[in-house]
Amino acid sequence: MKYVAVILAGSGFLDGSEIRESVLTLLALDSEGAKYKIFAPNKDQHHVIDHLKGEEVTGATRNVLEESARIARGEIEDLAQLNASDFDALIIPGGFGVAKNLCSFAFDGSTASVDQQVAAKLQEFKKANKPIGAICIAPALVALSFGDQKPLLTIGTDQGTAAELEKLGAKHQICATSECVVDVTHKIVTTPAYMDGSARIADVYAGISKLVKNVIKLA
Amino acid sequence: MKYVAVILAGSGFLDGSEIRESVLTLLALDSEGAKYKIFAPNKDQHHVIDHLKGEEVTGATRNVLEESARIARGEIEDLAQLNASDFDALIIPGGFGVAKNLCSFAFDGSTASVDQQVAAKLQEFKKANKPIGAICIAPALVALSFGDQKPLLTIGTDQGTAAELEKLGAKHQICATSECVVDVTHKIVTTPAYMDGSARIADVYAGISKLVKNVIKLA
Repeated sequence: MKYVAVILAGSGFLDGSEIRESVLTLLALDSEGAKYKIFAPNKDQHHVIDHLKGEEVTGATRNVLEESARIARGEIEDLAQLNASDFDALIIPGGFGVAKNLCSFAFDGSTASVDQQVAAKLQEFKKANKPIGAICIAPALVALSFGDQKPLLTIGTDQGTAAELEKLGAKHQICATSECVVDVTHKIVTTPAYMDGSARIADVYAGISKLVKNVIKLA
Repeated sequence: MKYVAVILAGSGFLDGSEIRESVLTLLALDSEGAKYKIFAPNKDQHHVIDHLKGEEVTGATRNVLEESARIARGEIEDLAQLNASDFDALIIPGGFGVAKNLCSFAFDGSTASVDQQVAAKLQEFKKANKPIGAICIAPALVALSFGDQKPLLTIGTDQGTAAELEKLGAKHQICATSECVVDVTHKIVTTPAYMDGSARIADVYAGISKLVKNVIKLA
C-alpha cells in the first residue's frame, strides 16, 4: 500500500487550496487503495479573500494550517513534521493559496520565490527520486523548484502562465481538464483541474484520478 | 436534465457544511448529468471553530453565505433567492453547520427550532412533492420539519441521535456509510456519510452517489 503526503495551502481557491481539487485528490487516493497524510505550513495566509465578492478583506488574517484543517477534518500536521522518507510520493492540489502562501508566483511569475520550508520539503522528495503530483497552478511550484531539470508539465491551455513556466526551464504541454501529463523521467505528473474556471467537476475528477493513478504507478 | 438546489451552511465540518460531503454531492450530481445551483443563508455562523484544535475562537465571526462561497467557488446565491418552483429536487449536505446555523439541533436535540427562512424553503419543496436528499446530520433538519409525517430516515448507527429523531416522529433505520435509505412515499433520501467520523472517503462517496441517484429517480 502506497503512502502519499498531501500539502495544502489553506481552504478556498482565492486565498488557499482549491477545496474541490483537495477533496477529489483524497477521494482518488482512497479509491486507489493508497493511504495519505495531510500537511500545511503553520503560517499566516498572504491575505483573506471574501469568496462571495472576490475582494480582499482588509485587516483579516487566517492561518494556513488552521484553515487547511477544515478540509483535513482536523487530521493534519504542521509541514515542519513532514519527512519524505516516510512517504512514497507527494501530491499538491491547486488554488491561489499555492501561488500566494507556498510561493509568490501569483505576484511575481517566473521571478517568484518559494517558501523556504516548502522548498526544502520538495527537494527532499526530488532527491529521494519520489514522484510529485501537481494540480492546477501547483506546477508553477514545480517549475520554480526544478525548472533547471526541464520537466514536462501542464497548466492546461493558459498561454500566459505557460510562458512563465517555460521561462523557468519547464517544457509545457497543452492538456484537457480530464487528462494529465506524465513526465516519467522526472517523475512529475500534472493536471489542469480548475485552471479552467468553468470546468465541470466530473472532468476535474477524471484528470485528478488519472494523476493519482500515475503518481502511484511511479512510486 | 434534472436541476437540483443544494443548501450549504458554511465551510468546515465543525461550524459549517462538511466540506467533503458538499464537494462529493456536486461530483455525484455532475456525474449523473444533473445541473445544480448552490444557496446559503446570508447570516452569521453560530460560532467559529478552529479546526486544528477543535476549539471555539472567541470573538470571531464568519458569514455563512461568504464561507459557503469557498466551496461554491463564488457561484452561490442568497438562500432568500431560492424558489422551489425552479428546481426538481433539494439536497442538503451535512456538517455541524446544519445543526448550528440552519437549526439548533446541535444544542437542543428534539426541542430544536429551525431557522425561519430555511424552514420556509423546505416546506416549499415538500408542498410541491419534490424529493429532498439529506446527508449526515441533515436528516435532523428533515425530522424537525416533517417528523409528524413519520418519514423513514437514517443517521447511520448513532443511537443517541436516532432517539432524538424518533422523538420527533421519524422512523430510524440503521445504515452503512456506503448505503442510503430511500423513503419513496415521502420522497426523502438519507445517507450517514461522516456521522461515522472515521469513515473512509470512498465509502462516503458511495453513499452520497446512491443518494443522488435516488433523489434524481424520485424527481
